[in-house]
Amino acid sequence: MSDYPSVTLRVALGPETLLGPGKADLLAGVAETGSIAAASRRMGMSYKRAWYLIDTLNGCFREPLVLSSKGGSAGGGAALTDTGRAVLDLYRRLQRNAATAVAADLHELATLAAPAPP
Amino acid sequence: MSDYPSVTLRVALGPETLLGPGKADLLAGVAETGSIAAASRRMGMSYKRAWYLIDTLNGCFREPLVLSSKGGSAGGGAALTDTGRAVLDLYRRLQRNAATAVAADLHELATLAAPAPP
Repeated sequence: MSDYPSVTLRVALGPETLLGPGKADLLAGVAETGSIAAASRRMGMSYKRAWYLIDTLNGCFREPLVLSSKGGSAGGGAALTDTGRAVLDLYRRLQRNAATAVAADLHELATLAAPAPP
Repeated sequence: MSDYPSVTLRVALGPETLLGPGKADLLAGVAETGSIAAASRRMGMSYKRAWYLIDTLNGCFREPLVLSSKGGSAGGGAALTDTGRAVLDLYRRLQRNAATAVAADLHELATLAAPAPP
């Protein structure tokens, strides 16, 4: 995110069930690359951390969000489940609708900020 | 925040100008207690960290958000400036309006989450 002003949303579904822009980007990366390793590389995140985040997410929902397979002739891979796609789509919609709802106030807040250094 | 599901908003006005629930609570604490030390104690935050956050915030806006005085017969104190009050009020309104805008989708997302442990 390089545009200012902007807002990002963090969703708490429970004390351990947190969803923000980082996890959403990771889910999107898995959907687009078909691989946890490729998704983590794209984000400059270690594979270990990506795996940990996905494992945590999987345990927070009624169904896993990501299914992965190891090895095989295709070298393994990962994909979003139906629930994973639903969660990602809902998060994206929440984020979009929140940004729209606050646009005018955000602009007003930005007028109070110091100008960016040249 | 102990209610679920809930959303929190983080505002980026520039690469270094970030405002989220923690800084907003700190500003509110200064307004209510008249003291950076009391505000930080109330949040379980070190005085040093509270002072650093406020110093950073002050540098991010056209006017400081918090003015503090040291010593004197009253033992010093701190208060929000007009800009500080405006920033806090705007942040609170952003947060409220975002929460309202996403309520229905948030409820739908919560139905996908695993039940909380008993």
